[in-house]
Amino acid sequence: MKTRRSERLIDMTHYLLEHPHELISLTFFAKRYESAKSSISEDLAIVKKTFQQRGTGILDTLPGAAGGVIFVPTIRPEDARNYIEDLAARLSEQDRLLPGGYVYLSDLLGEPELLKQVGRIIAAKYLGKRVDAVMTVATKGVPIAQAVSYYLNVPFVIVRRDSKITEGSTVSVNYVSGSSERIEKMELSKRSLKRGSRVLVVDDFMKGGGTINGMEGLIEEFEAELVGVTVFAEAKFKGKRAVTDYTSLLFVEDVNTQTKTISVVPGNYFSE
Amino acid sequence: MKTRRSERLIDMTHYLLEHPHELISLTFFAKRYESAKSSISEDLAIVKKTFQQRGTGILDTLPGAAGGVIFVPTIRPEDARNYIEDLAARLSEQDRLLPGGYVYLSDLLGEPELLKQVGRIIAAKYLGKRVDAVMTVATKGVPIAQAVSYYLNVPFVIVRRDSKITEGSTVSVNYVSGSSERIEKMELSKRSLKRGSRVLVVDDFMKGGGTINGMEGLIEEFEAELVGVTVFAEAKFKGKRAVTDYTSLLFVEDVNTQTKTISVVPGNYFSE
Repeated sequence: MKTRRSERLIDMTHYLLEHPHELISLTFFAKRYESAKSSISEDLAIVKKTFQQRGTGILDTLPGAAGGVIFVPTIRPEDARNYIEDLAARLSEQDRLLPGGYVYLSDLLGEPELLKQVGRIIAAKYLGKRVDAVMTVATKGVPIAQAVSYYLNVPFVIVRRDSKITEGSTVSVNYVSGSSERIEKMELSKRSLKRGSRVLVVDDFMKGGGTINGMEGLIEEFEAELVGVTVFAEAKFKGKRAVTDYTSLLFVEDVNTQTKTISVVPGNYFSE
Repeated sequence: MKTRRSERLIDMTHYLLEHPHELISLTFFAKRYESAKSSISEDLAIVKKTFQQRGTGILDTLPGAAGGVIFVPTIRPEDARNYIEDLAARLSEQDRLLPGGYVYLSDLLGEPELLKQVGRIIAAKYLGKRVDAVMTVATKGVPIAQAVSYYLNVPFVIVRRDSKITEGSTVSVNYVSGSSERIEKMELSKRSLKRGSRVLVVDDFMKGGGTINGMEGLIEEFEAELVGVTVFAEAKFKGKRAVTDYTSLLFVEDVNTQTKTISVVPGNYFSE
């Protein structure tokens, strides 16, 4: 059954959103909708224009016999900024302050809408860079890694501090935990990362950067390549950080346990 | 600027897919597209028909002044079955067998496409049931909980075996770990779950059901309500399981460490 343009546009939009960063041939759509390639081309031009106008993303067209389209999700810089500013206000809520000056984040990192936006914002930072895998450390980094992985359409791998038998053989490194200055160990399942992979590291929170530094060490052990580091939030840190080149969405500027106030502002994502 | 129907359909599809289970008023769309409500109604009728034909989901229409539409993602039973059968074949791959008869799953649980499908399949099981939160235990259950949470558009909470200071006050329970028969402890941040919440429990793997049983205990402690339990895979278990009422997508029928073979078939999701 031939489809009408309106139906094609709806289903095509769905299909493209579900398959970001994937080359989809005109032939695929022509078959799916039993329509001429010329009609499909016209459909895609409309989708492209609408995605651009609404800030949904870029629809790249590759001409030729092996050609097709690739949907690259993006976010308008002003939308990203507004979203992060709202988040900064939420993080500054007084009742998030925990003993020891920690900030409670677990509820936020379980909200699907927040994770989608954060994933989209982080992914948009690496537009045009090849990323083969997203890496994070268990447990709280996992939701962020998964969110980014959805938008980049690449797998994510989870580094663990307590490896389980269900991981099989692992490769481990030691690292200096910034907050406690202890030597700790982290491991990654041997078969989870191919040599030469280009890896994006994400995490929920960074203080001294010791954990991130450990992941960088693991990437070296796997003979893989670091594409970049982005954290959801960074805290102020006295002394020298173990990581200097990173992006943060939020910056916990000040925590005052006496007045019970937290001050959170947008991170360096916006200052570069 | 008034929009054309084609543009509206594309952006509306995107918006609905991003906001499942959310009541969206006709007024919202009418403003967003500077179009008459009658046009919006016509658009939504086309979206509804296409979503239905393609098995994308149900677009529920609520009439009246407070009305609007709610998009409920679904999956066609035959699509779910085909997908799970393919997964069973992948899980049966010989090189997934780990010492002790464990099955390596970590790579699969880091694939965005797989997680999307699994999230959609699990969410479809609870159509028409109110779910306020998805619960899982760290670490490997997290990707599944997040995937389900995206489709149900409700938050997920992570139970931990090793609570961190960053969780604030917690409520803990003891449980019997099925595989080792040891008494263990799991905890959940006190503020992560409201009293009376209706909770869906998910996990990656179930053997004796001790961990799931522990989560059920936590739900009681929080005076919350259990909606159901779904696991990605269940293993054969000799003896009495701590949990009897559950759904599994996959069933690890047999693991033979001598012949190094694993036999995985679809779980009871399809036999109910």
